[in-house]
Amino acid sequence: MDGKALRQNEVAVALPSASDAALHFIGTIRTPWQTRRDCPHRGDLDGPLCRLEIDEPWVAALDGIEGCERLEVLYWLHQARRDLVRQSPGRDGRTQGTFALRSPLRPNPIGSSLVRLVRRAGAVLEVRGLDCLDGTPLIDLKPEICRFAGATAKGAAGA
Amino acid sequence: MDGKALRQNEVAVALPSASDAALHFIGTIRTPWQTRRDCPHRGDLDGPLCRLEIDEPWVAALDGIEGCERLEVLYWLHQARRDLVRQSPGRDGRTQGTFALRSPLRPNPIGSSLVRLVRRAGAVLEVRGLDCLDGTPLIDLKPEICRFAGATAKGAAGA
Repeated sequence: MDGKALRQNEVAVALPSASDAALHFIGTIRTPWQTRRDCPHRGDLDGPLCRLEIDEPWVAALDGIEGCERLEVLYWLHQARRDLVRQSPGRDGRTQGTFALRSPLRPNPIGSSLVRLVRRAGAVLEVRGLDCLDGTPLIDLKPEICRFAGATAKGAAGA
Repeated sequence: MDGKALRQNEVAVALPSASDAALHFIGTIRTPWQTRRDCPHRGDLDGPLCRLEIDEPWVAALDGIEGCERLEVLYWLHQARRDLVRQSPGRDGRTQGTFALRSPLRPNPIGSSLVRLVRRAGAVLEVRGLDCLDGTPLIDLKPEICRFAGATAKGAAGA
């Protein structure tokens, strides 16, 4: 969406030329939604089944995740422009700061969703609760509530 | 911590040589904790006051955030090694996969916390609920619960 016209009263800034840190995508999210117009506005823990396909070498990092009822999923909103500081979600000239919105358009377009883990099959997790596009790159998975004691022990917190 | 000795039964992998996406830090987190040993294991919404110092050109993106009671904060765990797929938080030889833990050591070391917004003063937000090191780079802020209708309108969801 970079370069797309601004809506009334929206404000864009020049992005920094240097980057501060680099991400490695860990897999891909498969959802039923092919365009932004198709996506629901918010994930629903009883919504359609989606798949988190984990790439090597990260599949081993899933061990134990079967014990987690709910997961926090972080993903990269790869189609989002990053330069808006004021946005008009309603397209009505009224704007708010980007950090006061959960819009996908943000300096670091990282989406976060809480999902319900339905099933693990090897390198694939079946989950409900997402609202992002099919093909969205996956960044991280963390337990939200875990039935394993280890997940609440010292050293397991903090991220 | 890269290169630090593995604990018993921990497994590290070779990191991908290429990166998939780049982050721009949007500011810095100020907390009372100077070492990982000092950090609490989990943030407390009634814990010590911490400061989110936002850098230009992102200060304008805070407009309207005063209406948000709770914020989701994403930050970069800059001291964390990224190559572990199995970890032993208890240092006892028992390990779990990285994605089954909220450990800061992860392929993309992004921390997420829910905080309570106490006050905004210009480019600084005073919040409670963090558990990270002083000096941690800030990546993103999103409203968790917002009193402004705009935050629940179409286009405001999805990230």
